[in-house]
Amino acid sequence: MKEYVFGIDLGGTSVKLGLFRLDGKLLSKWEIPTRTENAGENILPDIAASIFAKLSEEGIGAEQVLGAGMGVPGAVLSDGSIVPCVNLGGWGGDAAAKLSEICGFPVKALNDANAAALGEMWQGGGKGCSNVVFVTIGTGVGGGIIVDGNLLVGVHGSGGEIGHIKIHPEETETCGCGKRGCLEQYASATGIVRMAKKALGECDKVSALRRCGEVTAKDVFDAAKSGDELAMDIVRGFGEDMGRALAAVSCVCDPEVFVIGGGVSAAGEIILNVVEKAFRAHAFPASEETRFELAVLGNDAGICGSARLMIG
Amino acid sequence: MKEYVFGIDLGGTSVKLGLFRLDGKLLSKWEIPTRTENAGENILPDIAASIFAKLSEEGIGAEQVLGAGMGVPGAVLSDGSIVPCVNLGGWGGDAAAKLSEICGFPVKALNDANAAALGEMWQGGGKGCSNVVFVTIGTGVGGGIIVDGNLLVGVHGSGGEIGHIKIHPEETETCGCGKRGCLEQYASATGIVRMAKKALGECDKVSALRRCGEVTAKDVFDAAKSGDELAMDIVRGFGEDMGRALAAVSCVCDPEVFVIGGGVSAAGEIILNVVEKAFRAHAFPASEETRFELAVLGNDAGICGSARLMIG
Repeated sequence: MKEYVFGIDLGGTSVKLGLFRLDGKLLSKWEIPTRTENAGENILPDIAASIFAKLSEEGIGAEQVLGAGMGVPGAVLSDGSIVPCVNLGGWGGDAAAKLSEICGFPVKALNDANAAALGEMWQGGGKGCSNVVFVTIGTGVGGGIIVDGNLLVGVHGSGGEIGHIKIHPEETETCGCGKRGCLEQYASATGIVRMAKKALGECDKVSALRRCGEVTAKDVFDAAKSGDELAMDIVRGFGEDMGRALAAVSCVCDPEVFVIGGGVSAAGEIILNVVEKAFRAHAFPASEETRFELAVLGNDAGICGSARLMIG
Repeated sequence: MKEYVFGIDLGGTSVKLGLFRLDGKLLSKWEIPTRTENAGENILPDIAASIFAKLSEEGIGAEQVLGAGMGVPGAVLSDGSIVPCVNLGGWGGDAAAKLSEICGFPVKALNDANAAALGEMWQGGGKGCSNVVFVTIGTGVGGGIIVDGNLLVGVHGSGGEIGHIKIHPEETETCGCGKRGCLEQYASATGIVRMAKKALGECDKVSALRRCGEVTAKDVFDAAKSGDELAMDIVRGFGEDMGRALAAVSCVCDPEVFVIGGGVSAAGEIILNVVEKAFRAHAFPASEETRFELAVLGNDAGICGSARLMIG
């Protein structure tokens, strides 16, 4: 009888793994380093070895395992193939099929933001909903969109690429994607720092941020919370850009709830306040009252959602 | 045996009806006037009488009818209820259930832009695709989004409300929806005329448009096709706004094809040229090559897609 499922969250520096019961109970979680050298040739053998060690440790037979879901830092096409991941040395392709061959149970791959979205829908900020937009604000801005319980992956794997909605077409600096004016250039941790530096350079306003050596996104939110006016302007600008982009998202897929996660979301309620305010100002009236929640699973969202994909 | 299905396209001035075989063959189409007085109390009886007359004329028994789909000019919620339609005197609610009761076969309602989207996917510009974004450019800008063969209706019925993506947040004039800066304010027939008047007022450029009494969107496209520079500027502005909005749509649902319909699309290839160019400039690289097609079903898209919804 199938009783267990693995969730794998493959990142550029570590692989997070979780062993779940089919009802979603997390029995065990652990990490191993990601060895990216030689086009990531050790990644799959390392993951498989770690899974086999866990099975042996727990006294579980491979025949009791339903399968594994694997979140990867890149696009996954509808045929299950992984577009080569830049920060894994070009690793990708048919890795899910290969891991399945080694392990002897089914393995399905999905994009890491999509995995986090599924996780938050299953056990987090979107619990009980089946139409969820998950936004992850970290170094970049990612997204995962769930419609009627299913991930909206898109024909080219770019469904939910919220960070690349053009928000300032007049921008002159280039985004990581090669285009200009993407949301990610303003509303990611990197983007917030860029906006802070710009604001500090363009005016003489007194600000606690001037005393920071290298300003971080956390510095900006902390200063804003302490009433620093310049920091508050930057935070409001972030909220305006993010809220306007999410209003556009809402005109496309009209979800029940937006769940905001990623490192920057640790700033807490202030994020919801500024984003919700701008969203309501820009949203199509019928969807103005769409709920906003902070993600709650933190680092477990990826393993949780990957496991959920396998359970189906 | 079920052999037939009706497609109903309910508009503010006329109701279009079509009798289809289940394989999609249109056997007969006709129109009746829409009587909107008294909160549209005659609408359902008129439709039912027209359907019964057709059945009798064709010698078809009600038991041979699988059902009817009905496209309506307003939002339809996921429970099948119709949000009261402004241009039908507030008509709506449980109209589909009522029509089903009168006719004795199932009736499903859907938004008219969504109906046209399904029609174009089934037998039109999106034939053979199951991930389609349909854009209708008429008095307003509407949209219908199909993901894996299913309509993306959204939790508040505003999935596919492409016309209300904010494209110019600096706008001071108000959109029909009550917000400001919506795509519809620039890229609908009305929007194009508004932009033309603005351009004519703001410069002294020689233009054939100055000789038109009341400029129409068709005048603008005709003049642009004849090489009128000012008209071409307006058309390029339209393309830029529409292309940028569709690039945002693509970052959400990443379709295989965009199908452009509605009255303005009669201008033809020039529309695809300017919209595609701007789209490719703004789209996320993985989706840059997404196809663009003109709608081909014209006025039949609504009855066709409504019938398709019923066939499922």
